Amino acid sequence: MTQPSVQKKFGRLLLTGAGGGLGKVLRERAKPWTDILRLSDLRDVGPAGDGEEVMCCDLADNASMLELLQGVDAVLHFGGISVEDKFVPIMQANILGLHNLYEAAHKAGVKRVVYASSNHATGFYRTTDVIDADAPLRPDGFYGLSKCFGEALSRYYYDRFGIETVCVRIGSSFPEPKNARMMTTWLSYDDLTELVRCALFAPRVGHTIVFGTSDNDASWWDNRKAAHLGFRPKDSSRQFKHLFPDTAERPDDGDPATYYMGGPFVTAGPMY
Amino acid sequence: MTQPSVQKKFGRLLLTGAGGGLGKVLRERAKPWTDILRLSDLRDVGPAGDGEEVMCCDLADNASMLELLQGVDAVLHFGGISVEDKFVPIMQANILGLHNLYEAAHKAGVKRVVYASSNHATGFYRTTDVIDADAPLRPDGFYGLSKCFGEALSRYYYDRFGIETVCVRIGSSFPEPKNARMMTTWLSYDDLTELVRCALFAPRVGHTIVFGTSDNDASWWDNRKAAHLGFRPKDSSRQFKHLFPDTAERPDDGDPATYYMGGPFVTAGPMY
Amino acid sequence: MTQPSVQKKFGRLLLTGAGGGLGKVLRERAKPWTDILRLSDLRDVGPAGDGEEVMCCDLADNASMLELLQGVDAVLHFGGISVEDKFVPIMQANILGLHNLYEAAHKAGVKRVVYASSNHATGFYRTTDVIDADAPLRPDGFYGLSKCFGEALSRYYYDRFGIETVCVRIGSSFPEPKNARMMTTWLSYDDLTELVRCALFAPRVGHTIVFGTSDNDASWWDNRKAAHLGFRPKDSSRQFKHLFPDTAERPDDGDPATYYMGGPFVTAGPMY
Amino acid sequence: MTQPSVQKKFGRLLLTGAGGGLGKVLRERAKPWTDILRLSDLRDVGPAGDGEEVMCCDLADNASMLELLQGVDAVLHFGGISVEDKFVPIMQANILGLHNLYEAAHKAGVKRVVYASSNHATGFYRTTDVIDADAPLRPDGFYGLSKCFGEALSRYYYDRFGIETVCVRIGSSFPEPKNARMMTTWLSYDDLTELVRCALFAPRVGHTIVFGTSDNDASWWDNRKAAHLGFRPKDSSRQFKHLFPDTAERPDDGDPATYYMGGPFVTAGPMY
Amino acid sequence: MTQPSVQKKFGRLLLTGAGGGLGKVLRERAKPWTDILRLSDLRDVGPAGDGEEVMCCDLADNASMLELLQGVDAVLHFGGISVEDKFVPIMQANILGLHNLYEAAHKAGVKRVVYASSNHATGFYRTTDVIDADAPLRPDGFYGLSKCFGEALSRYYYDRFGIETVCVRIGSSFPEPKNARMMTTWLSYDDLTELVRCALFAPRVGHTIVFGTSDNDASWWDNRKAAHLGFRPKDSSRQFKHLFPDTAERPDDGDPATYYMGGPFVTAGPMY
Amino acid sequence: MTQPSVQKKFGRLLLTGAGGGLGKVLRERAKPWTDILRLSDLRDVGPAGDGEEVMCCDLADNASMLELLQGVDAVLHFGGISVEDKFVPIMQANILGLHNLYEAAHKAGVKRVVYASSNHATGFYRTTDVIDADAPLRPDGFYGLSKCFGEALSRYYYDRFGIETVCVRIGSSFPEPKNARMMTTWLSYDDLTELVRCALFAPRVGHTIVFGTSDNDASWWDNRKAAHLGFRPKDSSRQFKHLFPDTAERPDDGDPATYYMGGPFVTAGPMY
Repeated sequence: MTQPSVQKKFGRLLLTGAGGGLGKVLRERAKPWTDILRLSDLRDVGPAGDGEEVMCCDLADNASMLELLQGVDAVLHFGGISVEDKFVPIMQANILGLHNLYEAAHKAGVKRVVYASSNHATGFYRTTDVIDADAPLRPDGFYGLSKCFGEALSRYYYDRFGIETVCVRIGSSFPEPKNARMMTTWLSYDDLTELVRCALFAPRVGHTIVFGTSDNDASWWDNRKAAHLGFRPKDSSRQFKHLFPDTAERPDDGDPATYYMGGPFVTAGPMY
Repeated sequence: MTQPSVQKKFGRLLLTGAGGGLGKVLRERAKPWTDILRLSDLRDVGPAGDGEEVMCCDLADNASMLELLQGVDAVLHFGGISVEDKFVPIMQANILGLHNLYEAAHKAGVKRVVYASSNHATGFYRTTDVIDADAPLRPDGFYGLSKCFGEALSRYYYDRFGIETVCVRIGSSFPEPKNARMMTTWLSYDDLTELVRCALFAPRVGHTIVFGTSDNDASWWDNRKAAHLGFRPKDSSRQFKHLFPDTAERPDDGDPATYYMGGPFVTAGPMY
Repeated sequence: MTQPSVQKKFGRLLLTGAGGGLGKVLRERAKPWTDILRLSDLRDVGPAGDGEEVMCCDLADNASMLELLQGVDAVLHFGGISVEDKFVPIMQANILGLHNLYEAAHKAGVKRVVYASSNHATGFYRTTDVIDADAPLRPDGFYGLSKCFGEALSRYYYDRFGIETVCVRIGSSFPEPKNARMMTTWLSYDDLTELVRCALFAPRVGHTIVFGTSDNDASWWDNRKAAHLGFRPKDSSRQFKHLFPDTAERPDDGDPATYYMGGPFVTAGPMY
Repeated sequence: MTQPSVQKKFGRLLLTGAGGGLGKVLRERAKPWTDILRLSDLRDVGPAGDGEEVMCCDLADNASMLELLQGVDAVLHFGGISVEDKFVPIMQANILGLHNLYEAAHKAGVKRVVYASSNHATGFYRTTDVIDADAPLRPDGFYGLSKCFGEALSRYYYDRFGIETVCVRIGSSFPEPKNARMMTTWLSYDDLTELVRCALFAPRVGHTIVFGTSDNDASWWDNRKAAHLGFRPKDSSRQFKHLFPDTAERPDDGDPATYYMGGPFVTAGPMY
Repeated sequence: MTQPSVQKKFGRLLLTGAGGGLGKVLRERAKPWTDILRLSDLRDVGPAGDGEEVMCCDLADNASMLELLQGVDAVLHFGGISVEDKFVPIMQANILGLHNLYEAAHKAGVKRVVYASSNHATGFYRTTDVIDADAPLRPDGFYGLSKCFGEALSRYYYDRFGIETVCVRIGSSFPEPKNARMMTTWLSYDDLTELVRCALFAPRVGHTIVFGTSDNDASWWDNRKAAHLGFRPKDSSRQFKHLFPDTAERPDDGDPATYYMGGPFVTAGPMY
Repeated sequence: MTQPSVQKKFGRLLLTGAGGGLGKVLRERAKPWTDILRLSDLRDVGPAGDGEEVMCCDLADNASMLELLQGVDAVLHFGGISVEDKFVPIMQANILGLHNLYEAAHKAGVKRVVYASSNHATGFYRTTDVIDADAPLRPDGFYGLSKCFGEALSRYYYDRFGIETVCVRIGSSFPEPKNARMMTTWLSYDDLTELVRCALFAPRVGHTIVFGTSDNDASWWDNRKAAHLGFRPKDSSRQFKHLFPDTAERPDDGDPATYYMGGPFVTAGPMY
């Protein structure tokens, strides 16, 4: 994928969660967009490369977050916990952490955030529904619930302070679909990158919610309300159809994971 | 069109109306999906070929229907009357017949039906409207009315017994469009086959209504609510545009057939 | 209840189902609206009183129906089967019978029908939903299914021949609510009469669907789309609240009758 | 206001926030609904009266919450922080606290919660809008944000575990309106009590969101989607119209508090 | 009708069309709202009374309009042509005139206009429809068309300059209904006055469209989107029901005036 | 672009505004559709070529317009003022002129008009909104306001006299996008031509509103309700992406032109 050229880069772009799966992908691809890419994670992300700076810190630590956001022009927030977990750690990282991030962003004058939300914010819709960004929230666990919180919090910072956010409800972003469900939810790395680019550079985004999937044959999500972003996926899971051929064998009637968009997440939590 | 491979075929798939226009098309194309294709029709459908079995019977005959559904895993219901006719024969074939089919399916434990509904269930919408699956019913004759009944009946068997149905509101499925109206309503045989495949193999379909057309330039029907099926038409009537060139001559103002989606059906019935 | 006066009565009004529960109510109350009230039922309805004529006949008998509609100006169709039953008798009375009625009405030049539809046409919505007249049909049994058919058929006769129909989805019309569910679905006889009067005399009704309930505190049904009828219920089930006091004991989780609008109907059919 | 009689009371009803403004109101009025009213608050609520038991504890303390919910049949959750505050205390009381409450409720087998949500979950809509329960969330501060969280969390516990909740987005519940804005948002104590009664005793509520206001002349909130609850307010702020006579003097153009439903809350937070 | 008291009157309120039917009604009733009521009309409106000043001028005369708006705090615009007429005079009075009014209002710093729009802006909807303020415009003649223009123009002055307008789509405001259609469209003088009061004194109205009718039994218009105004009609045409008793005689099928909300207007124009 | 062939051309097609930017484009391309292309403009359009006739006249001159429409079969109305201007000239050309055109068309028996409306009829929506043809009008100036008028007027002539109109809300039709905003609003000349062809030759169009843009990546406009036209754009502004590379520099917060769809138009008028 050839990226469109950039006339005027960001001075400093912050990428949180730089050590995570998608963080690593974006670390490579975000460089054309910025003079300096500031990387952050709780995990070690290795040494800073050309045009990079590393500032590892804990989202739940308010003081560090204020420092982290200093001098930043825009944020790609991929940090926090990205799987189902117990409530308290999710609250620390994804609720308190998100508050700290936005509060620091507000103080630092940041005007644009791309927020890694998740399809699990609406994971309790049925796989026979088709929803859009205005469908009422139906989280499928504590992780999804923290993303509902994040979407509401970023809406508040937009309405109150004018910080623009694109909430990307990421489907399943991996090199290729890992199971039949991901034939519907897959987001290729190229399409992820393009979606983040659109979210970052669109002249005005206000507070936009967009579902992050490639142009897969089947879909549960209607992105019409985000058409102003200009995101046009170029990949499709149909190239992997041979990996998941049609089958007359259906999962057991009693298996909720096949009835709900969230798949196995819907029965994963709460865990004690 | 290369069909996706099948990992686990149906043991026995029932195709009703096997002697009709679309039945013949599906008889050929459904074989990769099933070990045994059971064929039924009132008409003679010729001898059973490889992987086929023939059980001709009358939909209105309840006892025969119970027998017909024995051992069946899923149904492609293309039987019954598919043109405008007097009320009583339509009632026998399409109303009593459909009841018999579902009642037998329920007793036989069948869990999935692909039901050949028709655009004539909503044929009294105007050709300047664009509707989706939730638009209130507006049948254009007794045939369309029997399809309204079928959609409601299959909804009931889903809500009450969990039998999943995809109602395919078929437009005009022929080798090529026969008149200007069919430039909008045409469904190629390949796209019909693909739509039936999606309806048959999608993991969960609940009770889904989908309009059956190819990717024609003009459309009256919005399939957004069936996006979970994964149906992506590959053909388009635009390849036949030369057969129906633009014309400044419009049908008479008094001709209802050009104002309503149902076309000539809207003035066909009732017939006595 | 004082009824509004009538400037110009109907010459002859047909009341079918005159021997049924609501038929008896309307037999008394419809007289101010018509010079002659023609009564019909399969059952004996007793001798014709002043301003009445009796023509008992079977809805499924086409020839008798043609005769029954002769000279009629408008129809109150309360005939047919009004409880859950086996499919064939319901089909004969409510499907074939309804066809016969409309076909005869069309031939006789009748321009207005008030059709006793039922809340069971949408009985499979949840008791926590609130729906309006455009909600897709969800019948809760064969009886409800026959009402779905009737609504579609009357729509057809309106679109095709201009016969206007008001489909009244009657809740529970009794002297008083018989159980807790009827606190929501109750329609007093006075309100029934007023609704029928509105449906009969409104200058234009096209094809209108209206839910028939009194002004009960709780409601599942939104009649906004029928506001042109001018129906304002004057009674409310709240006068009977003492009969069904609040209770902390809820029906068993496994009892579908309390989850669906149709109540006990949802598990009544099919019966064999 | 005469309350409807109760056939079968709850064995034990938990009222959290019993020492707060509305808690005190409900402490008096909830007694006819339950054999034992368990009271909880961080504050001292005085000695237990007849039919009361007192168990003061901190929502943020998980172990205490497990104990608090033991033996409880239903919950009126009016605890937590009910004004704008700094983020961390709100998170402790209204986010962690709510999680603890529902987790304990789930373990104790509680099946119904009435949750004191707030109009501040949607306080950033304009005062010239009219919204219903499905309008996307637009919190006007950290307090409102915690209520957004609570609505999503209770939805999850319903979808996952079947715990039913009515989220009451309380307007302004005081003896009388205190300012012009409250002419629109006022909820009398009688109407509050009636709404809680409906929410507690309605046979099925699933997950219902309802706006809590009296029958005031002006309204921003449409409760149509909660019509199944049967709540009919009997009071209206119009009796206090003389306290806030019409005025040609409008607040300054630059004052956001008059443009947004949340009123002064929209500029109250965040506070540091 | 007792009007609510006024704490702080307008200094100067302009009433255009003061010599017209509704202008005369408002001339009497608007006095409690303002220190000075400035009256304008092309017609003679008689001498100025107490608290009145008279400035008759032509809406189409830009210079006079600038003068007319000097010193004005708010406007009740009931001027212009209020019946169907030829296009050019309607254009002069209602299109050019309205432009002049708003342009002068803008220059004079006026912040609130109550604009007498008309149900004829949507008169070509059917009498069996029920519409709200967002239904696309369907004027029934040149008069209705000029009201469509006025609604769009006032929207522009709100979006561009912040001048707030309430567009009142007046039904039929007379001492009593004059024909059967007005049983649905009637607006009593008391309710007109109350609606104008709400529109004038509501703290914020932005650009609101409201249908002006009393609480008549039948209605074509849903005012939910204007609930923030606080208008609650107190009269109803039902008190005049005896003047228009039910009748079985319906207007001829070919009479469009009974099929469309606009009534006789739909066939009145264009006139040459 | 190869145009579809034409079976039966129009006898005489009128193109107004033939001397304007788009008029010149259509003058070349409309010839295959008609035996005679009648050209009109206030400006000199040069001598008539083959199959052309020239009748220059003023839209505001009623008598000339009656003459202009004589013998015409269909109209492409691209005349009038197409930029922001003072009110009176816009009123003369676009309001009085449009009235004259339709009145003359009605007298001449014309049955189809393609009307060059504009995106400025809805220019005051935000650039983060996505709207369709039924979104309430929000003009961004006097020019946009005149287009609102035109859409309402053409609706009236359809409802009243059956003259069909397609209102094309043209985005920005130039050889290539001239600024970043036009990446979203661009309509190539080929796509313009195709859209006009569809609007002219579709069998029935009633009164259709369609947004005129190419298949650009970003879009504010949803054409679903015009799917019956069969317009499928073939070009996209993405081929010009290199001219407007991504930039981290955003226009000033105070610049309304970047917040509203109308762009610089929103602050252009009114001009005096």
